[in-house]
Amino acid sequence: MDDRLNDLLRRMTLEEKVAQLLQLAAPFFRGAEDEGQITGPLEGLGLAEAHVRNSGSVLGLTGAAQVIAVQDAHLKSNRLGIPLLVMADIVHGYRTIFPVPLGIGCSWDLAGAEESARIAAKEAAAAGVHVTFAPMVDLVRDPRWGRVMESTGEDPYLNAEFARAFVRGFQGQDLARETDRVAACVKHFAAYGAAEAGRDYNTVDLSERQLREFYLPGYKAALDEGCEMVMTAFNTVDGIPATGNRRLMRKLLREEWGFDGVLISDWGALKELIPHGVAADEAEAARLAIQAGVDIEMMTSCYVHHLKALIEAGEVEERLVDEAVLRILRLKEKLGLFDNPYRGADPEREREVVYSDAHRRASRELAAKSCVLLKNEGGLLPLAREQRVALIGPFARSGDILGPWSWLGSRDDAVRLHDGMAARAADPGRIAVADGCGVDEAATEAQLREAMDAARDADVIVLALGERSEMSGEAGSRADIRLPQAQLDLVARLKALGKPMAAVLFNGRPLDLHGVADQADAVLEAWFPGSEGGAAVADLLYGAARPSGRLTMSFPYAVGQVPVYYNAYNTGRPKDAPDAQVRYVSQYLDIPNEPLYPFGYGLGYTSFAYGEAKLSAAEMSAETPLAVTVQVTNEGDAPGEEVVQLYVRDLAGEVVRPVKELKAFRKISLEPGETAQVTFELTEPQLRYYHADCTHASDAGAFLAYVGPNSRDAVGLAFRLIK
Amino acid sequence: MDDRLNDLLRRMTLEEKVAQLLQLAAPFFRGAEDEGQITGPLEGLGLAEAHVRNSGSVLGLTGAAQVIAVQDAHLKSNRLGIPLLVMADIVHGYRTIFPVPLGIGCSWDLAGAEESARIAAKEAAAAGVHVTFAPMVDLVRDPRWGRVMESTGEDPYLNAEFARAFVRGFQGQDLARETDRVAACVKHFAAYGAAEAGRDYNTVDLSERQLREFYLPGYKAALDEGCEMVMTAFNTVDGIPATGNRRLMRKLLREEWGFDGVLISDWGALKELIPHGVAADEAEAARLAIQAGVDIEMMTSCYVHHLKALIEAGEVEERLVDEAVLRILRLKEKLGLFDNPYRGADPEREREVVYSDAHRRASRELAAKSCVLLKNEGGLLPLAREQRVALIGPFARSGDILGPWSWLGSRDDAVRLHDGMAARAADPGRIAVADGCGVDEAATEAQLREAMDAARDADVIVLALGERSEMSGEAGSRADIRLPQAQLDLVARLKALGKPMAAVLFNGRPLDLHGVADQADAVLEAWFPGSEGGAAVADLLYGAARPSGRLTMSFPYAVGQVPVYYNAYNTGRPKDAPDAQVRYVSQYLDIPNEPLYPFGYGLGYTSFAYGEAKLSAAEMSAETPLAVTVQVTNEGDAPGEEVVQLYVRDLAGEVVRPVKELKAFRKISLEPGETAQVTFELTEPQLRYYHADCTHASDAGAFLAYVGPNSRDAVGLAFRLIK
Repeated sequence: MDDRLNDLLRRMTLEEKVAQLLQLAAPFFRGAEDEGQITGPLEGLGLAEAHVRNSGSVLGLTGAAQVIAVQDAHLKSNRLGIPLLVMADIVHGYRTIFPVPLGIGCSWDLAGAEESARIAAKEAAAAGVHVTFAPMVDLVRDPRWGRVMESTGEDPYLNAEFARAFVRGFQGQDLARETDRVAACVKHFAAYGAAEAGRDYNTVDLSERQLREFYLPGYKAALDEGCEMVMTAFNTVDGIPATGNRRLMRKLLREEWGFDGVLISDWGALKELIPHGVAADEAEAARLAIQAGVDIEMMTSCYVHHLKALIEAGEVEERLVDEAVLRILRLKEKLGLFDNPYRGADPEREREVVYSDAHRRASRELAAKSCVLLKNEGGLLPLAREQRVALIGPFARSGDILGPWSWLGSRDDAVRLHDGMAARAADPGRIAVADGCGVDEAATEAQLREAMDAARDADVIVLALGERSEMSGEAGSRADIRLPQAQLDLVARLKALGKPMAAVLFNGRPLDLHGVADQADAVLEAWFPGSEGGAAVADLLYGAARPSGRLTMSFPYAVGQVPVYYNAYNTGRPKDAPDAQVRYVSQYLDIPNEPLYPFGYGLGYTSFAYGEAKLSAAEMSAETPLAVTVQVTNEGDAPGEEVVQLYVRDLAGEVVRPVKELKAFRKISLEPGETAQVTFELTEPQLRYYHADCTHASDAGAFLAYVGPNSRDAVGLAFRLIK
Repeated sequence: MDDRLNDLLRRMTLEEKVAQLLQLAAPFFRGAEDEGQITGPLEGLGLAEAHVRNSGSVLGLTGAAQVIAVQDAHLKSNRLGIPLLVMADIVHGYRTIFPVPLGIGCSWDLAGAEESARIAAKEAAAAGVHVTFAPMVDLVRDPRWGRVMESTGEDPYLNAEFARAFVRGFQGQDLARETDRVAACVKHFAAYGAAEAGRDYNTVDLSERQLREFYLPGYKAALDEGCEMVMTAFNTVDGIPATGNRRLMRKLLREEWGFDGVLISDWGALKELIPHGVAADEAEAARLAIQAGVDIEMMTSCYVHHLKALIEAGEVEERLVDEAVLRILRLKEKLGLFDNPYRGADPEREREVVYSDAHRRASRELAAKSCVLLKNEGGLLPLAREQRVALIGPFARSGDILGPWSWLGSRDDAVRLHDGMAARAADPGRIAVADGCGVDEAATEAQLREAMDAARDADVIVLALGERSEMSGEAGSRADIRLPQAQLDLVARLKALGKPMAAVLFNGRPLDLHGVADQADAVLEAWFPGSEGGAAVADLLYGAARPSGRLTMSFPYAVGQVPVYYNAYNTGRPKDAPDAQVRYVSQYLDIPNEPLYPFGYGLGYTSFAYGEAKLSAAEMSAETPLAVTVQVTNEGDAPGEEVVQLYVRDLAGEVVRPVKELKAFRKISLEPGETAQVTFELTEPQLRYYHADCTHASDAGAFLAYVGPNSRDAVGLAFRLIK
């Protein structure tokens, strides 16, 4: 294959090669519906028509007819007829929007995650997209950061499993043959989720060991699964922005990991080396990025304006440009674009598959699995279909339930909670609905009166609360992670009525739920559940589906506790130690150390009893794995799903080790009274960690294996690893 | 000198040598007033009398008569008559308490800091102390952490200057001759101030470059000034607790920095290697610590119980023990203890110097310099002596103004604010006083009535608010850094009266001042000002002294903004960039990026105008430094002090560089109308920084020099470094 590509490469002029590394947004391209619409900050790119004609890829172009038109024009307008690579942000669905990834993570359903990506790919591919800028696998610990909604959470193992599932779903087995798949681009390499103070784009500072132990496994797993592309992060990694970080990109990603796919900068990130303060000008930014190994420059023009001069001055080897071009051409070849430049783009097929009933059903199912029941006092949920319900809150009738990165989804078509419940209730008339207040606009007198009137006649109040999608997502950092005061005030007013109250939350981050969780009898975290959100939540509220989600990110007690995450270190003065002093332990004076709801936590409509867990032996070795067995019984009256979780603690390492680390899980479904035996096999590689010199190995010694329903309530069993 | 000590070492048995490494608290020693009082967690030490008889040092023993008695008994009870080393926490004063170090930092008065340490040493030495566990020079960025009050703040340069000043003050020139000085022990090595989430003792994770650039300069400066001892930090450094961290202690501190003085563990920190999870048992803890280079084990018994066996088993070289013992003996020799084991301990001298009038005057002066005037609308302060004042708040008559680590100070003797003001007012009867509420207990009806009555008759309300000293200090972490709600409620009630209102704050950390700074017309941050606090604050309130303090730690806008510090990096998408987009910049949606009050900020009773700053040239080099000159004029009607500050920004480095770095400052005093010309010399070494490979060097290129009254309002001038 490379012969053909090398031949093509040889025929390209240096200008054509450099232009191949440029990625521009759709409005730059002839044939695009929004051609010429680019204004504002992009005017400064100073591009000539030749740059656009010879550019290698386009961003944010979708729609089969449009893609075909643009590709057509592009093939004609570049001398060698090199097809354009079409990329787009298809993050949690194309037109059929699935829950935000943090919600998908809470499903602990890898098959469901893969299916969501397969469907997104199918719709996007029919609409002409070749590559999606997903999955985002950044490990997250700070809910102030708005992009936590794009991640599956705080656990490196679980994130890695989801990374693999998404890549499988997007890419399938063979991108040339399966034209209903798209290439994946794992992002944001690396550690974008560790932005200081939860402020987007902010500095990241980590030790290399911390980086390797927690932050890198997600990206590595995606690449192990064959992910074709990598996107650079906006942040610094050890003092150097990722996009110009040679050690991270050239040494680690390319040389150590052997990644030879396409590395793309995030939007504008290449030129941002200047404000970051590691490049004095665009020429230096271009030099740093190409030397680091960045192939495609997204939405800035440092490469096209400076690479040629840098090569001529001997500051950059032309070989680096050739390698970058070849990687891009190879991806085009892999996608079959040289044989069929339109690939899956097909207006008819697009009409068939996009937002199809089957896709919407899949979205509804995954949405129901993504919701996490945090509280259910007195079994308030599920509701009976006959109950008179007052559905109150700014999300009762809102279509803003798709979440960030759902630009091709339609809020108008999204199933709102009121509609979903009306379809489920015995009689739609049993549901009185009121907004109560705005998302963060205090209740007007009329709103309040309407809400109180609705509530007074009801058997039960269902609150529909949350954040506007713009309150999370990129650049959506919040310093206060409570619900807006207007909603907390509404909750307090309704609470005074003394009626049973269930809260449904639509939001993109773990919240400080004081003012809600202490007021409502039941709390269902629905995240941004996607196109079928209202239907899925209604399924859960009325018991047509059963809550089975478990948190994959801790819900802090207060923002002053952030970062709080389950896989932390013990410290030398843990609060709960048997000989702990009253004062001189690691604690806050004013709040607990524990989050309000821990990682792995979630309720169902039944309850499960765990038998005493058993180990197959007191010792294990590389040759003899350990079996950890537990019996789980559904003790309630309803069927239900349980996520049985296995954690390990290494009691003494060369470096400090987390108090618990998730090693495996099993999602099981049990009928009332039914018992299942769950057995996990624990092997030596699962006990490896990064030592002081960053070697990855296990140590002989004492460990604990914890089995339980979440990271807090698991019971520890002692064993030893023998070497 | 070492001949005598080597000879002594040769005569010691291994048991005696190991016991020399043990440090116990005073109650273990014969002759101590509290002998045998140790109970609780210390019972488990399992020590025999021989261990105590042969131990090398004692902790927390003071009082000339007592020290003499204990030394006497000890000299008789150990075979070789080796004197006991007496150590104690003399952090910001012995009996004469000075402001907490964060307050001293805000004075920007290095001579005053040195004098405070000299006085503390003088009192402590007369009381028999040989070594103080100070200065604490941990760089701090997170006000949730209670021990920020022990640090001079968030700037590495300023902290280093204060570290030197404190060491000079404690140690003088010659510890053997100057028996009114004490040896200093810099702490906590290293980076204890970076505890994650501001929770004391919590994990620290930093890149090595970040560690070197920001956290290490304070310790290094103390050692460069001749500091005799170093204390280990409780936290991990790159995954290994400092107390067992060979790379940090053996490689960096001992080999790279050449420190050959005594390294002591913090209280119990050696055994804490077990809960940290890097030692399986006490024997392993002992091995790790001695191999790391820790000489003295404080308050645990891993060394005495295990070193001998470890040596016999060949797991630890006896040489390591010999080296540790020799370092301890050398310090005793340096202090002159082999010639005069009682050293400065002298009951008569103790009575003379301790809490002397001269010392109290010095404390009062430094306290006045440590206060920071944050707001003074309409020139409400200073008060006229004739004004009728309502002094209201839980700190109006409180003696809890010494702050943490003032165990030898007396709250009873401390000058309370009411007393200080009564002494300054034209007539004490003009000051009505009321508590208003408790520190965090809501106002009773009686309290509120009393407060409102007092306020109604007054011309001006002075609020005396703050934190109890136990709310900061060691293990005093708070997740909510506002004043307690009871006090905020009180402020709101009094605000309703519409009277002029000045708030005086007694506290140990930067606070979120919403609810105070937006309510009061004037705000004076008094920190915990020490023994003469009420007098010093009254001096300022009535204009007998002039506020001249400047913040050395940012006051956050909200806890959700933490960490916020002035010497941060720019990011690739700074909010204030000329081409910044509305949304996609590094910001919070709900609060500003800027702190409420920035580093370097503070007001006086006059105002200063800055002329246009000038550079001596547009370029500088290693051979040709740059002169930065500015004229500052006192434009007001009162004399005043100004802290003229010089910051530098390196516009493009190999790694990202702070948006501003303090390089120099000058505290000047000007009469009304007077102008001073301030010239700073900027030299090439001041432009050096840690590169990616941790080499320390400067780069040719563009810089900005900022001159101004604080880190926010400084004006930048461009220059270039030529190489």
